[in-house]
Amino acid sequence: MNLLVLNSGSSSIKYQFFRWPTETPACSGLVERIGLDNAVVTHKVLAGEQETTTVLSVDLPDHEAGLREVARLLADPQLGVIQNPSEVEVVGHRVVHGGEEFAATVLIEPAVKEAIRKLFPLAPLHNPANYRGIEVAEKTFPQAKQVAVFDTAFHQTIPEPAYRYAIPTELYTEQGIRVYGFHGTSHKYVTEQAAQYLNNPAARLVSVHLGNGCSIAAVRNGQSVDTSMGFGPLAGLVMGTRSGDIDPSVVFHLISQLNYTPEQVSALLNKQSGMLALTGLSDMRDITAALEAGDANARLAYDLYAYRIKKYIGAYAAALNGLDALVFTAGVGENDALVRKLVCQNMDYLSIQLNEEKNAQRAKGIREISTADSRVKVLVVPTNEELEIARQCVALLETAE
Amino acid sequence: MNLLVLNSGSSSIKYQFFRWPTETPACSGLVERIGLDNAVVTHKVLAGEQETTTVLSVDLPDHEAGLREVARLLADPQLGVIQNPSEVEVVGHRVVHGGEEFAATVLIEPAVKEAIRKLFPLAPLHNPANYRGIEVAEKTFPQAKQVAVFDTAFHQTIPEPAYRYAIPTELYTEQGIRVYGFHGTSHKYVTEQAAQYLNNPAARLVSVHLGNGCSIAAVRNGQSVDTSMGFGPLAGLVMGTRSGDIDPSVVFHLISQLNYTPEQVSALLNKQSGMLALTGLSDMRDITAALEAGDANARLAYDLYAYRIKKYIGAYAAALNGLDALVFTAGVGENDALVRKLVCQNMDYLSIQLNEEKNAQRAKGIREISTADSRVKVLVVPTNEELEIARQCVALLETAE
Repeated sequence: MNLLVLNSGSSSIKYQFFRWPTETPACSGLVERIGLDNAVVTHKVLAGEQETTTVLSVDLPDHEAGLREVARLLADPQLGVIQNPSEVEVVGHRVVHGGEEFAATVLIEPAVKEAIRKLFPLAPLHNPANYRGIEVAEKTFPQAKQVAVFDTAFHQTIPEPAYRYAIPTELYTEQGIRVYGFHGTSHKYVTEQAAQYLNNPAARLVSVHLGNGCSIAAVRNGQSVDTSMGFGPLAGLVMGTRSGDIDPSVVFHLISQLNYTPEQVSALLNKQSGMLALTGLSDMRDITAALEAGDANARLAYDLYAYRIKKYIGAYAAALNGLDALVFTAGVGENDALVRKLVCQNMDYLSIQLNEEKNAQRAKGIREISTADSRVKVLVVPTNEELEIARQCVALLETAE
Repeated sequence: MNLLVLNSGSSSIKYQFFRWPTETPACSGLVERIGLDNAVVTHKVLAGEQETTTVLSVDLPDHEAGLREVARLLADPQLGVIQNPSEVEVVGHRVVHGGEEFAATVLIEPAVKEAIRKLFPLAPLHNPANYRGIEVAEKTFPQAKQVAVFDTAFHQTIPEPAYRYAIPTELYTEQGIRVYGFHGTSHKYVTEQAAQYLNNPAARLVSVHLGNGCSIAAVRNGQSVDTSMGFGPLAGLVMGTRSGDIDPSVVFHLISQLNYTPEQVSALLNKQSGMLALTGLSDMRDITAALEAGDANARLAYDLYAYRIKKYIGAYAAALNGLDALVFTAGVGENDALVRKLVCQNMDYLSIQLNEEKNAQRAKGIREISTADSRVKVLVVPTNEELEIARQCVALLETAE
């Protein structure tokens, strides 16, 4: 089965092409700067162990032109992997917000598109771009089945005392204000991998997704029972440029005493906060380097970042009444040994014992970095959202048949 | 030593008079509706086991008139406990916000008053009223030593990774935006009582203060290491009318999509949220009655309220690397057996085992409500902020001598 996974942003398209059941993509790429001067397409073809990367500069006025360029590349005599774009049988779309309507992956029909459009106010930055991606894919690959995989869907199993806020009920029932949670595709993927590794489908897991955005999820029996992002992607852990949890009083103080506009406060907390605000740097590798050079701000930033994670692990251990394994994933989670060390130290009360040597090693695939007698296993599980999207598309189509 | 403890609100004065070293007040009272028509003074005199309550309706145009009325009552031939107001030797003032300037109780001098005034923007509702109380007490009891006891002081030991937000550093260094925490006098009092009861001054304690306002503190070696209220008294647990923790995205959504003003959102989260918003009721006893009558909203409200507490206990167990005792205090904490039960159930992973029979009994004084084999002791410790203020005044004056 020829399967294309798409992640459409406001000015970008990420894609991976699978020749299913092969779980390694035959090719992948990124279209950037759509609608700006000099769009850039980075196209990678995998053949065996060999990866060939081609970078093209093309004029792409809109997403339709962008996706047509992807279709052209897929079927290009030199760079392509198929003969004709019409060979694409399934397009799997990452859609950020599925609201309460979507607790699972679905085949895209008019009613689904209508529902995604209705959710624009809840995800004004992401859903419109995802929606445009769907419309353009329907034109570009008219013969393919279009599937939507929602970033919120995995968290729809969270019970009501965890997803509700203590605000007037009508704001939930009429306006949909509740915890939705995000990174669901990643949390689902890595916790399934971990449960398999542990050979325990009922495992109580805490999944720590640390990328540019960061979130943490409590998972039991393969179901999300709580997560740190809430109504939007701002709450919870400290992120690259987002503050994570902050007393809402600060918002009102900035507005009423320091003359910020609400828009400025929103921009402050979403784009100028987090690790960037504390260190002036936004890449964790640069922050690590600053820390190693003795920078006190970098030290504080690391400590704050790790302490917040530690508290969520504690909170979710309470929600799960104990913990079988802790799972680190995504860029920082997979690669930053110091963060994992700071998070796991002084957690004897839960019986979390890191093997510092294993923690410091870099390796591919799932690895266990706790000591043999650590009752809670600590795992590093590389995330793969595109593969998870592909798997869910296949599972859906198999069920439908 | 004759000691008067004052808690001055915007239109009220609470007072307790101690004939130290007797820790039971000789009299106490409340002046309400200052500046409105028909101020009401409720004055209680304790003699042995007997309490005599007198309610007076007086015209009190301002706090000065209010405190003069208190002075008159203290020295009243029938209702009083002293011959002359000049016998008051010490006045202990509850001051809500001490910023970073005050980590302990202090004798009030001009520089202290200046510092309290500088903190008005951080506590616009409370500090001005507390300040006015000090000014009026200086006039009314000019011979007495005036002492300030700050609600934030106990939390000044919280380490930086716990008190900082991940926002630009200047907002901390120049604007003082950080976690301060409140209810410090109560958390200090009950955790000292608990540590004494456990005969373990180094105990790792979580103190759960559940009144109209609610907060929770992690305490080790008698020092606060984290607390749930933050920059203001809004964050953390679900309260009577306050939302507690909420994704700040909700604030921006209400403003940008639903046309709230920032002031309306602030009022919504502070005054129209919490248990009131979920149930339409603000008194926990009424909510318990609704729950017992099968009301689904009351059920959800209780579950949400308890789940939030449970997660904080878990988070603070992680911060403390384990827990020796859990302490419930204040109106709801001391009296609501159902809340304690919901919080403590399914917490076996920490070895918290409630003795349901002991939990259901009402009693005075400290009591242990966990089972004999619960490794974490669960205690109910009645709080007494006025007594703690009196004790701190005495300790300060003894040190100063």
